[in-house]
Amino acid sequence: MADAITTREKDYSQWYIDVVRAAKLADYSPVRGCMIIRPNGMALWENIQRVLDDMFKETGHENAYFPLFIPQSFLEKEAAHVKGFAKECAIVTHSRLMSDGKGGLMPDPESRLEENMIVRPTSETIIWDAYSKWIQSWRDLPILINQWANVVRWEMRTRLFLRTTEFLWQEGHTAHETQDEAIAETLQMQGVYATFAEEYMAMPVLRGLKTEAERFPGAVDTYTIEGMMQNTWALQAGTSHFLGQNFAKAFDVQFQSRDNKLEYVWATSWGMSTRLIGAIVMTHSDDQGLVLPPKLAPTQVVIIPIMRKGDGGSSPVIEEATRIEAELKDAGVRVKLDARDSQRPGWKCAEYEVRGVPIRLALGPRDLENGTIEVARRDTREKSTVPREGLAAYVKNLLDEIQKNLFDTALAFREEHTTKVDSYDEFKEVLAGKGGFLLAHWDGSDETEAQIKTDTKATIRCIPLEREDEIGVDMISGKPSKGRVVFGRAF
Amino acid sequence: MADAITTREKDYSQWYIDVVRAAKLADYSPVRGCMIIRPNGMALWENIQRVLDDMFKETGHENAYFPLFIPQSFLEKEAAHVKGFAKECAIVTHSRLMSDGKGGLMPDPESRLEENMIVRPTSETIIWDAYSKWIQSWRDLPILINQWANVVRWEMRTRLFLRTTEFLWQEGHTAHETQDEAIAETLQMQGVYATFAEEYMAMPVLRGLKTEAERFPGAVDTYTIEGMMQNTWALQAGTSHFLGQNFAKAFDVQFQSRDNKLEYVWATSWGMSTRLIGAIVMTHSDDQGLVLPPKLAPTQVVIIPIMRKGDGGSSPVIEEATRIEAELKDAGVRVKLDARDSQRPGWKCAEYEVRGVPIRLALGPRDLENGTIEVARRDTREKSTVPREGLAAYVKNLLDEIQKNLFDTALAFREEHTTKVDSYDEFKEVLAGKGGFLLAHWDGSDETEAQIKTDTKATIRCIPLEREDEIGVDMISGKPSKGRVVFGRAF
Repeated sequence: MADAITTREKDYSQWYIDVVRAAKLADYSPVRGCMIIRPNGMALWENIQRVLDDMFKETGHENAYFPLFIPQSFLEKEAAHVKGFAKECAIVTHSRLMSDGKGGLMPDPESRLEENMIVRPTSETIIWDAYSKWIQSWRDLPILINQWANVVRWEMRTRLFLRTTEFLWQEGHTAHETQDEAIAETLQMQGVYATFAEEYMAMPVLRGLKTEAERFPGAVDTYTIEGMMQNTWALQAGTSHFLGQNFAKAFDVQFQSRDNKLEYVWATSWGMSTRLIGAIVMTHSDDQGLVLPPKLAPTQVVIIPIMRKGDGGSSPVIEEATRIEAELKDAGVRVKLDARDSQRPGWKCAEYEVRGVPIRLALGPRDLENGTIEVARRDTREKSTVPREGLAAYVKNLLDEIQKNLFDTALAFREEHTTKVDSYDEFKEVLAGKGGFLLAHWDGSDETEAQIKTDTKATIRCIPLEREDEIGVDMISGKPSKGRVVFGRAF
Repeated sequence: MADAITTREKDYSQWYIDVVRAAKLADYSPVRGCMIIRPNGMALWENIQRVLDDMFKETGHENAYFPLFIPQSFLEKEAAHVKGFAKECAIVTHSRLMSDGKGGLMPDPESRLEENMIVRPTSETIIWDAYSKWIQSWRDLPILINQWANVVRWEMRTRLFLRTTEFLWQEGHTAHETQDEAIAETLQMQGVYATFAEEYMAMPVLRGLKTEAERFPGAVDTYTIEGMMQNTWALQAGTSHFLGQNFAKAFDVQFQSRDNKLEYVWATSWGMSTRLIGAIVMTHSDDQGLVLPPKLAPTQVVIIPIMRKGDGGSSPVIEEATRIEAELKDAGVRVKLDARDSQRPGWKCAEYEVRGVPIRLALGPRDLENGTIEVARRDTREKSTVPREGLAAYVKNLLDEIQKNLFDTALAFREEHTTKVDSYDEFKEVLAGKGGFLLAHWDGSDETEAQIKTDTKATIRCIPLEREDEIGVDMISGKPSKGRVVFGRAF
C-alpha cells in the first residue's frame, strides 16, 4: 500500500518527495546525491527517450557514444567551460585497489594515473577532440550527433530527479559550416524541446534566451524552455546552446571551406535530462499522488476486475476483462489487466491512483448484467458508468481529453500566475504573494540582475523570443529597457 | 573512400581493426582503453538493444537504473567478487579541481572523499544493497530487473569492442524465493542469449557451464554461450550466473518465507555487451569489409541510382528509385536511397560494401527500359539482374536467405573446426594446426586445466550442457572423466 503523502499546502517540497517515492519512481541510494530509478520511473524515461529519439532522427541526427572519462587537460582547454565545471566533478586518480594491511582496501599508489580523469559533466570537450579528427573539409559537415548517456556533477544539495549528482540525459553536439546554420540548428532544437514539452508532457513552456549570468559555460547564447510548477516556481526543462567557434578554437577544428579557405567550425549543443520526470510530477500531480499525461504514461489504462476471493482466473468477470484488454490493445492503448487474486480491488484502485495511471476501468458481475463499465479518470478523479459497447473508442477519446485537460489546466495556472510589474516594490509584493512569472523591464546589466537575485532569490528565467516591443525603464537602475524579461524563483 | 583492409590471411588481428574502422563502427579515443562508438556502430547496438530488450520484457523483466558509483566498502563485502575486480577499477577520490598555481589544475585536497567510490565494473553490490531494502516477504519476490548501462574495467590490453576499459552492456539482476527458481531463471536467460545469437546474429553457439577457474567472481555457477570466430578462436558472447545466496548473505537480504521462516534470497545475474558487435564482425565479415546479418543491419537494402552528372533529383531513374524505396519501406524493409549527386555510383557501391549492407540495388536508364534491376548480395558478393516486377517480395526473400546462409556458413565452419582428441599430443597438434574447438576428456581438476593453459594458451570454454555420457580419461593426469569438455583459444 502507498505511504501517506504530505499535502502540497503543508509542505510542497516534502509532497514532491512523497509522490516520487509513493509512485515508486525513484529512491535514494547509499551513494551521496545519486538516485536509483525504479522500474516505474524507468518506464516513463524510456517513453520520453523513444519520443525524443524519433524527433531527433526525423531532424537528421544520429546517435553515437563517447567515453565516460574526460582527460583533465581537455577540460582546461576552454576557459569558461572549466570554470563552470571544475568545482563539481568526480575525479578518477587511481586504477587499482590493494590491501591496506588492516583488512580493508586502499588505492594502490603505483596505480596513480599519469593524468586525472574527470567523469563527464557534459561531453563538449571529448567530442570536439574527436571532431578535430573527423572534419577536414566542408564535405564533412554538418555533423549531427546525439548521445544518450549518464553524466556526473558533484552537487551539494540534491533532490530526486531535479538535481542529482548522476543523471541520465541526451546531449546533441553538432558541427556546421556557417554561423547561420548553427544558429538555425540551435533554434530548431529548442523548438523540438518545446513541442515535446507541450504535446507530450502537457507542460506549457516559455521559449527564450538566457542572460549572460545564466548561460552554459562555453556558450555564446543559451536558449531555454521554462515551465511553471504548481508552487509557481520555474523549471528549466531543456537548453540549446549556440557555441559559436569557442570549442572549435579550443580544439583547433578547422575545415577547408567551399572557397578554399581554412575556417573554424561552428557548433551547437543541446540537452534534456531525467529532470523532465520531476517536471511532469510537479506540473500535474495532486495530493493523492502521481498524475501522468497519457501520451507518456507507461500504462494508460488499468482494468480491475471486481472479484470475490477465490474467483480465480476463470470467472465471467475475468473473461470479460480479458476481452476488454485485447480490444484496447488492438486499438493501440497501453493497457494492463490486474487480475491478481492476492490484492483487493480497493487496494488496487488506490495503488494505480498513486502511480498516476490516467484511466482505471472497473467491472463486476453487476456491470456484466447491465452491459456497463466503471471509468475513473485520474486527472479530475471523476467516476462514471459508461456502456460496454464502443468502449475502445470511448477510452481513446478520453485519453486525448485528459492529455488536453492537463495542458489547459497547466496553461491557465501559468496565466493566472504571470504578472506585469513596473516597480521594484510591486515586484517584491507579487513575488511574496502569489509568486509566479514576473514580466519586468531590465536594463541588461549584470548588476541589477545580481541585486534582484540577492534581494529576492528571483532570477531572470529568460528573455522571451517573442515579446512586445515596449520601451521602459529598469525597476532598479532606471536605465532604459527595450522590453520585458521573465523573472521567477526557480528549482 | 574506405581505407585499405589488411587480408585475414595476412594478419587477422589487423584485419579486424581495419574492418571496424573502415566500416566506421568505432574509433580509438584519447582516453586509454576507451572507444568512441560511431553512428554506424551505435545504430547496430541500438538494433541489438531493441531485440534483446523485447526478449527480456517478454520473459517478465523490467528496466531500472542504479548509480554509476559503488562505495568501496560495498565491493569489499563479497570476498570472491572484490578479488575479481579490485585490480582493474577506476577509483574516484576527489570531487573538485583547483588551480595548481602553475596555470593548471589539480584535485582540491579538501575535496578528498571520505570513502572512495569505484566506477561500477558490474552492479551486484549496489543492487543487492537496494534489494535489502525492497525485500521483506516472499510477496516481494521475484524481483526481475535489468539495467542498460556503461561499466568500467581498467584493462591493460584493449581491442575495439572485444575488450575496452569502458563498455556498454545490459545486466540482469534477479531475486528469488527458491534455489530451483533461480537456477531456472539462469538457464532461461542463457537460452534467451543463445536464441538471440543464433536467430539474430546468425552466430551458432555452444551452451555450457564454465569451470571454476573461468567463473564470474561471486557466482556459484556461470553458464555461457560460446561462438567460434573465423580464426577458429572462441568468443564468450553472453554469461548467465547462478549466484546462490552469496550476495544475499553479503548484504543480509532475508525474507519471510511462505512457512514463516527467515531465509536468504536466491540470486542470478546475466549480461551481454557491445562485445557482440565484435562477434558479428568476426563471424561474418570478409576481406572487403563488414558483413551484417539482415535482421540486425541498420540498413538492409541500399538503392543506388546510376546517374550521369547533372541528372539531379528529377530524372526518370531517380523517380523509379524513389518508388522502389517506398515499396520496400511499405514491405517493412529498412531501406535507404542514396541519390547524392556528389559521389559516383562506383564509390557508393564500394562504400556500402565496406559497411556491410546486405543488399545493394542499382538501376540505370537501361534497367528502366528492360524492366529490370541489378541486385548485389553482400554475403556471397554475387550480382544478378532480376525483374522489376515483384521486387519487394524478391528482396524480402533474399534477406531471409542471406540470414540463413550466414548462419549455415558459420555452423559449417564450426563443425569443420571441431575435433575429438584423446591424447595431449594430438591436442597440441590439432590446436597448432587447424585450431578450433577440441573435445577432450578432463578430470575436473584445476591442475590439468591450468597446465594446458600454460602449455598451449587454450582454456576450457565450457562443459557442454548437452553432451554424450562417455567414460574416458584425462589427457594429462590419466584420471577418470565422465564426458568431454570444449577446449579452445579464446579472445
